[in-house]
Amino acid sequence: MYKLLKKDGNARRGEFTTVHGTVQTPAFMNVATCGAIKGGLSSLDLKEIGCQVMLCNTYHLHVRPGDDLVYDMGGLHKFTNWDAPILTDSGGFQVFSLSSLRKIKEEGVYFNSHVDGRHIFMGPEESMQIQSHLASTIAMAFDECVENPAKYEYAKQSCARTERWLERCKAEMSKLNSLPETINKNQLLFGINQGATFDDLRVENMKKIAKLDLPGYAIGGLAVGEPKEDMYRIISAVEPHMPDDRPRYLMGVGTPGNIIEGVWRGVDLFDCVMPSRNARHGHLFTKKGIINLNNKKYERDALPIDPECDCPTCRGFSRSYIRHLFKCQEILAMRLCVMHNLYFYNNLMAEIRCAIEEGRYERFREENVEVLDKRI
Amino acid sequence: MYKLLKKDGNARRGEFTTVHGTVQTPAFMNVATCGAIKGGLSSLDLKEIGCQVMLCNTYHLHVRPGDDLVYDMGGLHKFTNWDAPILTDSGGFQVFSLSSLRKIKEEGVYFNSHVDGRHIFMGPEESMQIQSHLASTIAMAFDECVENPAKYEYAKQSCARTERWLERCKAEMSKLNSLPETINKNQLLFGINQGATFDDLRVENMKKIAKLDLPGYAIGGLAVGEPKEDMYRIISAVEPHMPDDRPRYLMGVGTPGNIIEGVWRGVDLFDCVMPSRNARHGHLFTKKGIINLNNKKYERDALPIDPECDCPTCRGFSRSYIRHLFKCQEILAMRLCVMHNLYFYNNLMAEIRCAIEEGRYERFREENVEVLDKRI
Repeated sequence: MYKLLKKDGNARRGEFTTVHGTVQTPAFMNVATCGAIKGGLSSLDLKEIGCQVMLCNTYHLHVRPGDDLVYDMGGLHKFTNWDAPILTDSGGFQVFSLSSLRKIKEEGVYFNSHVDGRHIFMGPEESMQIQSHLASTIAMAFDECVENPAKYEYAKQSCARTERWLERCKAEMSKLNSLPETINKNQLLFGINQGATFDDLRVENMKKIAKLDLPGYAIGGLAVGEPKEDMYRIISAVEPHMPDDRPRYLMGVGTPGNIIEGVWRGVDLFDCVMPSRNARHGHLFTKKGIINLNNKKYERDALPIDPECDCPTCRGFSRSYIRHLFKCQEILAMRLCVMHNLYFYNNLMAEIRCAIEEGRYERFREENVEVLDKRI
Repeated sequence: MYKLLKKDGNARRGEFTTVHGTVQTPAFMNVATCGAIKGGLSSLDLKEIGCQVMLCNTYHLHVRPGDDLVYDMGGLHKFTNWDAPILTDSGGFQVFSLSSLRKIKEEGVYFNSHVDGRHIFMGPEESMQIQSHLASTIAMAFDECVENPAKYEYAKQSCARTERWLERCKAEMSKLNSLPETINKNQLLFGINQGATFDDLRVENMKKIAKLDLPGYAIGGLAVGEPKEDMYRIISAVEPHMPDDRPRYLMGVGTPGNIIEGVWRGVDLFDCVMPSRNARHGHLFTKKGIINLNNKKYERDALPIDPECDCPTCRGFSRSYIRHLFKCQEILAMRLCVMHNLYFYNNLMAEIRCAIEEGRYERFREENVEVLDKRI
């Protein structure tokens, strides 16, 4: 499924083939929490801004509209009108970050819905069943994402439980994929590496889960408040133990600089709500750094957000106009800005792929890693 | 400028040519209050849903971002990235409906901004200057839109003042169009018929303003709460006194049924916030009547909003998906629904034009006038 086309240092240029099409990697997955990108973008817009993979949140969709409804409507692809790959997370991260009254047991997690307080139980089997209903291309394993900073003993214990959960996920997914009523019988399960910020736990965990021979592996539990040096150190520690012939996904990361560093260390896939969330507040990426469109100096600025950008927003609209829309609370402001920031990310990945292909990724990294994250 | 192509009863099929392109009439103008359609539509979307004329509100743009800013940015066409005709209203209607502490004098109106309470004066000259700054294709005369119901004596007095204001508008517009710094030196001024619900005042006023030989005429002060029979009676009373060779615009109207009746009585142009406002609440037009997408019965409905519709929304998305987006307060819900309702209106006008061309407007009216306004 994953074909390595070229290596430049540790950076990998690859192709990841699924039943819903081939993903050119490294790639950034665009987050559509409830089946739509926040800011008013539809699946038609995603095609226009170069999105390859849409990421939906299992927890949110389970709570509303319910995975049984999405199943009845033919799965997420039909429901959202998106025919390319979709990745669903396991629900675990939101269970731990959004819901209240959690009780973690060997069988899974008991918690209350953040929408209506209703009692919900989710374990590995339930997560797989929900994701099978949603019929995404890639399902993520159900794991515990421990808080940062974590105590060593707790992290070790949690890690061991997450490993046991992963075996249950694999068994359940295999069962679900063989059922006649399953929409996507080729649903892929990705395992998730955990171990908080402890290198020995991380490496031990990675070695164990690699043996399960899953179609892809993620590094989870990072970008939760730890210094970025810790993140980079952990990636470098774990990466040598990840199978070469499977895609590697760094969950919830990050800034353009984080992504450039992740690719540099051998990561293929990324996702983050930051570009769309920042866009909705007028914080916008450009090739020269991050601008804040609320700044008075853009009031009569006839330039597009980024004069070097070819996105639909920059081809048609000025900083002055979009700033005006923000002041009038017109939702078109958010839409135009989210379009721009996601295009910026998708285009960054295209440039990264090109730099790897041409064997000049080291220079690309040096020229961009700090500039792109800087507020100007 | 206006060419009558065909008459079918009183219904007129025409072409209205401006410096920003030709409008096929009858036409519906799509309301972009602050320079953007509420619901997240950009000028690029308007092209896709068959919009011919964009309507912007002078009062709103004067208050924010300021007509001087729009002028500095090259006028509304450049600012909004819309190259087809734009009509601006005079600001009068909003001064009377939105602002506080109004004082109406012979010279104009003193009022407070609804945004920051700032004192503003607007008279005929100021309205023309602002609209000239905005550089719209069509500027509307500054008038008083009296409340409904109005006393006869007040309506008569107000009407006479509005006539004096119209002469001042014409003189000012002619002056502005001859200034070298004016962006659109071909800006067209439309006169507005007033007279509340009194036929004699309406007819007398229309006869007077017709003599000013303006490029177009509107019927104002209707759709402000009076019974629709009054509206239709007044249109029929005024219409014979409107010049044949100029476009006629019924301001702020209305439902599909109102528009069908307006065309039947010889009207060429319409505008209304209702289709976009209703869309934002999930009230949607179909060829069988109006549906409310919040209704539980659409929860698992895989059909598009209107199975007979070819709009971008109906080509890609189900009632079930859009209803889900409303429940999650995703703004994509509003966007998809506004796209649909405005497409419905623009397409209704195309069908009306076709029916007139083919001499079957009477049948078209009978078949649609009640059905389209009915809640189903």
